[in-house]
Amino acid sequence: MVISCAARLPCQDTIETAHQRLGVANPLVHCLTNPVTINFVANTLLAIGASPVMADHPDEAGDLARQADAVLINLGTPSDSRLEAMRRATKAAREAERPWVLDPIGAGGLPRRRELALSLMQQHPSVIRGNASEILGLAQQHGSGHGVDSAHTPREAHQAAQELLSWAGGVAISGASDQLFGVAEQNGRPRPLCMTLEGGSHWQPRVTGTGCALGAMIAAYTAVCTDVPTAMLAAHLHAAAAAERAEELANGPGSFAAAWLDALTSVEPVRLLEKRVNTHWLQSSGRH
Amino acid sequence: MVISCAARLPCQDTIETAHQRLGVANPLVHCLTNPVTINFVANTLLAIGASPVMADHPDEAGDLARQADAVLINLGTPSDSRLEAMRRATKAAREAERPWVLDPIGAGGLPRRRELALSLMQQHPSVIRGNASEILGLAQQHGSGHGVDSAHTPREAHQAAQELLSWAGGVAISGASDQLFGVAEQNGRPRPLCMTLEGGSHWQPRVTGTGCALGAMIAAYTAVCTDVPTAMLAAHLHAAAAAERAEELANGPGSFAAAWLDALTSVEPVRLLEKRVNTHWLQSSGRH
Amino acid sequence: MVISCAARLPCQDTIETAHQRLGVANPLVHCLTNPVTINFVANTLLAIGASPVMADHPDEAGDLARQADAVLINLGTPSDSRLEAMRRATKAAREAERPWVLDPIGAGGLPRRRELALSLMQQHPSVIRGNASEILGLAQQHGSGHGVDSAHTPREAHQAAQELLSWAGGVAISGASDQLFGVAEQNGRPRPLCMTLEGGSHWQPRVTGTGCALGAMIAAYTAVCTDVPTAMLAAHLHAAAAAERAEELANGPGSFAAAWLDALTSVEPVRLLEKRVNTHWLQSSGRH
Repeated sequence: MVISCAARLPCQDTIETAHQRLGVANPLVHCLTNPVTINFVANTLLAIGASPVMADHPDEAGDLARQADAVLINLGTPSDSRLEAMRRATKAAREAERPWVLDPIGAGGLPRRRELALSLMQQHPSVIRGNASEILGLAQQHGSGHGVDSAHTPREAHQAAQELLSWAGGVAISGASDQLFGVAEQNGRPRPLCMTLEGGSHWQPRVTGTGCALGAMIAAYTAVCTDVPTAMLAAHLHAAAAAERAEELANGPGSFAAAWLDALTSVEPVRLLEKRVNTHWLQSSGRH
Repeated sequence: MVISCAARLPCQDTIETAHQRLGVANPLVHCLTNPVTINFVANTLLAIGASPVMADHPDEAGDLARQADAVLINLGTPSDSRLEAMRRATKAAREAERPWVLDPIGAGGLPRRRELALSLMQQHPSVIRGNASEILGLAQQHGSGHGVDSAHTPREAHQAAQELLSWAGGVAISGASDQLFGVAEQNGRPRPLCMTLEGGSHWQPRVTGTGCALGAMIAAYTAVCTDVPTAMLAAHLHAAAAAERAEELANGPGSFAAAWLDALTSVEPVRLLEKRVNTHWLQSSGRH
Repeated sequence: MVISCAARLPCQDTIETAHQRLGVANPLVHCLTNPVTINFVANTLLAIGASPVMADHPDEAGDLARQADAVLINLGTPSDSRLEAMRRATKAAREAERPWVLDPIGAGGLPRRRELALSLMQQHPSVIRGNASEILGLAQQHGSGHGVDSAHTPREAHQAAQELLSWAGGVAISGASDQLFGVAEQNGRPRPLCMTLEGGSHWQPRVTGTGCALGAMIAAYTAVCTDVPTAMLAAHLHAAAAAERAEELANGPGSFAAAWLDALTSVEPVRLLEKRVNTHWLQSSGRH
């Protein structure tokens, strides 16, 4: 069964309000992330109306995770010190019932990253967001990658994503089309579902950090949404709508990056809903 | 008493020449700063005609601080290694009589940052620049913050800023209006004063690193100015004038950041003087 | 003797195809580089069609260097941990016969950097790229610098560059005019040569990381070129052509940086060949 989100998804009435709430709530998002894209991630959060804090010292990470409205853990270029900070932050986030998002960069092809990700997953992230190779890697399947890029299509990682719903509230696979896996109520019972989104811009893979920024946006939305599927969907629609507007103005990846940050501040909620989302209910494994 | 800077401040004849001297002197500014905004800070210094060096290894920090014309210490995301480098750099800067600027990021709400800042202040910075919560935190008052953002207005931190003049040559509080505290001669005697500036752009708080960049600009100006109030004022006017020009061209925070760097290279000194600055002489505590 | 590249250099028929091959081959470039410009370097590689991976943990560096098509080692702000990763990566690159590029930032004026660079050079880089002070420093001559900037002209470093050809396949000196030193066949025998390029934009020295980005571009081109002089030349022409186009659109360093990334994706190979390159055969030292 394919249903349109705007019409029949449990999240239907909240995408627009989620976007509005974000600007009002100004959620504090504690990010433990890589130096490659840390500036872009912070600017993304500021652009959407959130308040980033990027402190990655182990002695500060636990306290900040408790103070924050949401936590982002991004495994890009993890130093030993930042990794220890991640351990404390995820533990603190779980204890304080703060939503947290795992972006398992490199877990597709780099054994050390996969181990780190699996270890952090013991604290049950709200959302895991990655490319197909990373999702396959976490499910202990034949994950591999081209450096930190994906060597698989989102479609190939469907089974892996469903398995990871035992560990996480939602799983988002980024690719040419994005696939979002979560659990929603159907006839009063929780049932897994998959939402598929087309859209965005061909410049996104040519700008480093567009994936990292999406992870941060999901974290920000988890702070203002009552359910995980809505948060994932709102973040993806917001990012994709801004990317489409930016592409209209861009002459290449440099101007695209600036225009995308601009558009994040100004895309209208109504535009977010114009996008087409296809939703499939999945066979329940009985574990949800 | 309110006086206009252009007419009656001790710095009156130097704002314009300070700006010109900066481009000629090409001062070397050694920055120990955070990875979140390090690229933006370096580009800011290049844009205003200074020469940045960002080396943060403890074994290099002392030598570089001695070679540099000014030093910036920014407490964002401080690793243990960079902190040790800061200790050596501030000690070397004081011994070599190099001006140095302290940007105590997070000293409002994070106990570890406050301790680090207080410890570094033993080397008597030329200027402390921060938001109101950070300045309150350093004065051991009821500082607190929203992550690394301020939870207070500059006005609330006036008393704290005056107290910090025992430790620093000047104190700059950033906010909707900026407040600069320093000491100048009045009738042949040093007396504390406060300068208030309006201006800038509403996009500045939506771009990460505009505060860090201002700290670096103050450091660069301390290298070419003979007194601290002039250096603080010249840096703030330069930043604000560029921000106003950039806002005219920007469609959001992404294009604003690029336009601000552009404008830093091209704002004319005369425009800097057009801005209104209000100056108040303060009651001397007798310690200056 | 001065010959024109387009007409008589061994590389003549490959500059254009090198540029085309880059987009098709999508080479994986493993970068161990500094946090100041790491984002700009990654975006540069994406813009030219390469695939960057920036992992700098010692436990990952060797494996990634073996998997990569080329390796970049940039000595900016080297932490002890990243330095150990550089040691493993260069060793692995040499064993796996992967090309690697050394960017010895600060080797002109900072003793620690010079020692690090000399130590890494034991693994024989494909190319050393630096400013004149850095090249002089590596040749154990009177290198010095203004922070990490050059205090010498490329011309002054000619002798030093030739000496370094004992250690590296090529040496590129960046400055107002760029000087590229390599070895090519003349009458069936290897002979050293020097290629001189004019061009580029006056904004390049006002944007941090344009030199680092050029080092990364050389690394990417070494992955798709059969000889080092062609790789060096193709990278420099690509960068310079993009800089000239960007300057036409830029209002300052902020807009220049974005426009340069844009132009890297769109400059046409034919334009690369329009630029004038002067080539001199050098006296062979008999060591090649």
